[in-house]
Amino acid sequence: MTGVEPASDAVLAVLGVGVVDPSTPVIRADDAGVTRGDGCFEGLRVVDGAVDKLDAHLARMARSCAALELPFDPDSWRALVAEALAAWPHPGEAALKLVLTRGTVGYAWLTPLAADYPRLRRDGLRIITLSRGTTIDAFADAPWLLGGVKTLSYAVNMAATREAARRGADDVLFVSADGFVLEAPTGTAVWAVGRTLRTTPLGASGILGGTTQQRLFDRATDAGWRVEEATARVDDLHEADVLWVVSSVRGPIDVIELDGKQRARRPELDAQIRRLAGF
Amino acid sequence: MTGVEPASDAVLAVLGVGVVDPSTPVIRADDAGVTRGDGCFEGLRVVDGAVDKLDAHLARMARSCAALELPFDPDSWRALVAEALAAWPHPGEAALKLVLTRGTVGYAWLTPLAADYPRLRRDGLRIITLSRGTTIDAFADAPWLLGGVKTLSYAVNMAATREAARRGADDVLFVSADGFVLEAPTGTAVWAVGRTLRTTPLGASGILGGTTQQRLFDRATDAGWRVEEATARVDDLHEADVLWVVSSVRGPIDVIELDGKQRARRPELDAQIRRLAGF
Repeated sequence: MTGVEPASDAVLAVLGVGVVDPSTPVIRADDAGVTRGDGCFEGLRVVDGAVDKLDAHLARMARSCAALELPFDPDSWRALVAEALAAWPHPGEAALKLVLTRGTVGYAWLTPLAADYPRLRRDGLRIITLSRGTTIDAFADAPWLLGGVKTLSYAVNMAATREAARRGADDVLFVSADGFVLEAPTGTAVWAVGRTLRTTPLGASGILGGTTQQRLFDRATDAGWRVEEATARVDDLHEADVLWVVSSVRGPIDVIELDGKQRARRPELDAQIRRLAGF
Repeated sequence: MTGVEPASDAVLAVLGVGVVDPSTPVIRADDAGVTRGDGCFEGLRVVDGAVDKLDAHLARMARSCAALELPFDPDSWRALVAEALAAWPHPGEAALKLVLTRGTVGYAWLTPLAADYPRLRRDGLRIITLSRGTTIDAFADAPWLLGGVKTLSYAVNMAATREAARRGADDVLFVSADGFVLEAPTGTAVWAVGRTLRTTPLGASGILGGTTQQRLFDRATDAGWRVEEATARVDDLHEADVLWVVSSVRGPIDVIELDGKQRARRPELDAQIRRLAGF
């Protein structure tokens, strides 16, 4: 989703306005959503015209808005999503983005699934670790750092993704300045050790709570897995049975290469986790 | 500059378009400038229709664009600034913002000086220190962290400013996770110890190189001051003769209170520094 791609196959619905031509500019030059990256968003999966776990995404967006002191009315957003979906004629998967700027422009943006997702889902991810610059406990008692808030200020996430591409990798795993595993620029790290699934703790680490990771952990618990939040170093990931990067639209994808080191795939285990996550 | 303030007294000039009604939306919903805070900007001072140190700002914007792999043509920006100024009828001071988004929407936005600047310049700043979460050397060899790049991803800077207001302060001084002085959300820290002016080193610290701080240091050197980049802890600032937060539009303002501790003002010294900085 960039400003340079054609919008011919997109649906745009604006809060208080309705569905409009997606190529129509809707944001003012002085909206701090653009001048300051000040606002929040959600990325959601659509399958055959239905949004996957809309409640969880709206709940997280409500928390983001509370942290940013932005107004949020879930009912208007539900109605907006319904309007956008009604204008979307395509079966199968699609990506829905919900955005709210400081200037209180709210909108839903619906597009086809990214072209490279089917290949990544099939082939797995080659990822590199990059420092995020923050320490593993940097966000404790520091709400102004907006830990766990899905803000529009993703320039570093995008630059890290470009760095991965430059190095021939598919994605990034951020580590803290003191060497602990954090998260991917647009996904949650989950790894399996025996019958235990682990992920990085929220809170002091500043990482975003993943809605798909949460669903996976809930369902995995019911299926007999142990699940836990645990700080880990990259070496712990090298030793894990499987490592996934979990995102709402792309789903959980197993990592086949971490910092240039090949990882054996575990197709049955991987398939079970993807299924539990709803993919 | 937020999306909710009236734009009746603003001038908006858009690259490739010219001067348009400032209330006209100019940014598309899928421009990563808004969805990802992906882009860069500059804030410049205008005095009686002339831009202060335009060359230094354009040079810094060129560096930001290079780091973000965005196109930048200084001549088009000069022409855009001239167009905006030609449409600005007001004498005295004004604030000019130059913005370029990932979707390559570029614009100049001219407004009157912020209402509280005259008071702050007269009365000085009460500031609090807040952690930025990053270590003092976090940005060394980590270009993806965009240290020194003036990106649109300022959500944390804005949240820190709101935190300051909540605590009854005027501004923030960010410190690193390991306790070293960094910068203000929209300004550079400069402090005087005897006949030496100091500021935080660029590079590994990730702070932005200030154009007004640079001019001040250049002119102060000519006026017989020593100038140096030096890491410092907050206690070092408590012991400094004067501490300033230096910004391009607001100018250097002396700090009268740091973390609740009063600081004696030094009017003659302060006046000399402001004059050297061009204020």
